[in-house]
Amino acid sequence: MTLLAVGTVAFDCVETPFGKRDDILGGSVSYLGTSASYFTNVRMMSVIGEDFPQGILDFFEQRDIDASGVKRIPGQTFRWRGRYTENLNEAQTLETQLNVLTDFDPKVPEAFLDSDYLVLGNISPDLQLNVLEQVQGAKLVACDTMNFWIDGALEDLKKTLKKVNLLSINDGEARMLSGEHNLVKAAKAIHAMGPDILVIKRGEHGALCCTPEGMFAAPAMPLETIMDPTGAGDSFAGGLMGYIAQTGKWDLESLRQAVILGSVMASFNVQDFSLDKLKSLSHDDIRARYQAFARLTAFNADFPNFW
Amino acid sequence: MTLLAVGTVAFDCVETPFGKRDDILGGSVSYLGTSASYFTNVRMMSVIGEDFPQGILDFFEQRDIDASGVKRIPGQTFRWRGRYTENLNEAQTLETQLNVLTDFDPKVPEAFLDSDYLVLGNISPDLQLNVLEQVQGAKLVACDTMNFWIDGALEDLKKTLKKVNLLSINDGEARMLSGEHNLVKAAKAIHAMGPDILVIKRGEHGALCCTPEGMFAAPAMPLETIMDPTGAGDSFAGGLMGYIAQTGKWDLESLRQAVILGSVMASFNVQDFSLDKLKSLSHDDIRARYQAFARLTAFNADFPNFW
Repeated sequence: MTLLAVGTVAFDCVETPFGKRDDILGGSVSYLGTSASYFTNVRMMSVIGEDFPQGILDFFEQRDIDASGVKRIPGQTFRWRGRYTENLNEAQTLETQLNVLTDFDPKVPEAFLDSDYLVLGNISPDLQLNVLEQVQGAKLVACDTMNFWIDGALEDLKKTLKKVNLLSINDGEARMLSGEHNLVKAAKAIHAMGPDILVIKRGEHGALCCTPEGMFAAPAMPLETIMDPTGAGDSFAGGLMGYIAQTGKWDLESLRQAVILGSVMASFNVQDFSLDKLKSLSHDDIRARYQAFARLTAFNADFPNFW
Repeated sequence: MTLLAVGTVAFDCVETPFGKRDDILGGSVSYLGTSASYFTNVRMMSVIGEDFPQGILDFFEQRDIDASGVKRIPGQTFRWRGRYTENLNEAQTLETQLNVLTDFDPKVPEAFLDSDYLVLGNISPDLQLNVLEQVQGAKLVACDTMNFWIDGALEDLKKTLKKVNLLSINDGEARMLSGEHNLVKAAKAIHAMGPDILVIKRGEHGALCCTPEGMFAAPAMPLETIMDPTGAGDSFAGGLMGYIAQTGKWDLESLRQAVILGSVMASFNVQDFSLDKLKSLSHDDIRARYQAFARLTAFNADFPNFW
């Protein structure tokens, strides 16, 4: 099945306690699309400037991603500069140059209108709504957002959420959006806004998937080397939506596997800067990490014979 | 098998966003012992003042806890006053009155010297060492500690840790003790200090059990009502050590169940103030919560048939 991923393509300058890189590939849809491309047919929509190298578009093509929706327009590509301190859970944004992003035309290419699944990376809620209204036949629509929009465009965001099936945000954003500190209450409030499936990303603490059927909690993989957390949430969403688009299933039992697959992809992504680790995984790498998650979390569900 | 639990008995004054209670039963050994008493024979060592009501000692007896090591001496019982803000993960200590705790005589009663398992609640490391050196035949020694001792009594703590098999601390303390922010590296550094088993408590994010054999990650149970997190760590340790003392097993497979049982007991404990929830659980309550953890974390370990 086809997954249409919409979001940003960027050049990032990133500094973490483990190194510094300038002008590396970033942006939500780069991570989303590359991650999902291991599992399903990906179509990509974004905007880039004249400075964007053909080599990266070639890389998307090598990964069988249809990047014909990544439009090159006059100007410079979106740029983000950020820094992480030892607590890798939160980035400090040092600079944002929107550049061509201000002219992002959300018109879905004709060839993409029949996409089966849709994942909307973190862009403004009105652009997200615009896109999702064009892809009428989508079986499931997922979206990400951030505190910036919750704070500054809440009414637009609420309109978008009414038409979204799966929302993937971090715990702070879930609390902010719902006005509830308690995550169980936050999930109920967010379900009432539209999305039946809420996936709460908790960085090094894993993810919590909340549905009306029940909840599923997954840890993050404890790793000795974490180079750069940029794109972890989008890599996660890519694995998650890659699973859903490939299997066509999103009941709670299926979502459990999808969340683990998202966690697998996020765990690879943080092991190097940019997409350096994510871009060249083998099926065996992914299978082995999935098994590692199974070992990390397994316990005998039969209650011990105490009484 | 017998589990000797050593620590404090206290009167707490606690304020959380959900209420305020004065002069309620608290202290590490109250939670530890009560929690463990559902699973194994518990012996308790602590010190109380003249103000301590006989009714609470009667309660321990009703739970088949041998509290003959809880010595009443002249003076007032240890008192703690604390407050939690909406982020329930960390208490703000408003007042500590050590009272009789300053005269705590760590001499293990003769009848307790043959205890099979030993759990040392958070008291000064030299007292912990004193106790553990008396209980020569203990098959496994567990201990808790806190930032106060890591900061102020590190050399004493290191001497104690050399003789400890299982250390149960929170993530901030693990980072502080090891000098490593990365928890995988922190665990290795702490293993080298003595304890083969490190259980890192992460509050609402669950627990991570690190052994040389491998790791096990457990989430916390997402609860809609959390009244008071006081004693969660000790209730957790009580369930964990109750399992180990009852089964005599602490290989990684067994520890997985033990950690879940600890998480079960902690999840009950936070649902009310003091021991109000913990003190009157049924076997069915505990079994049902264990099953709820199994449902919360289960996923199909067979990799999806993608490729």
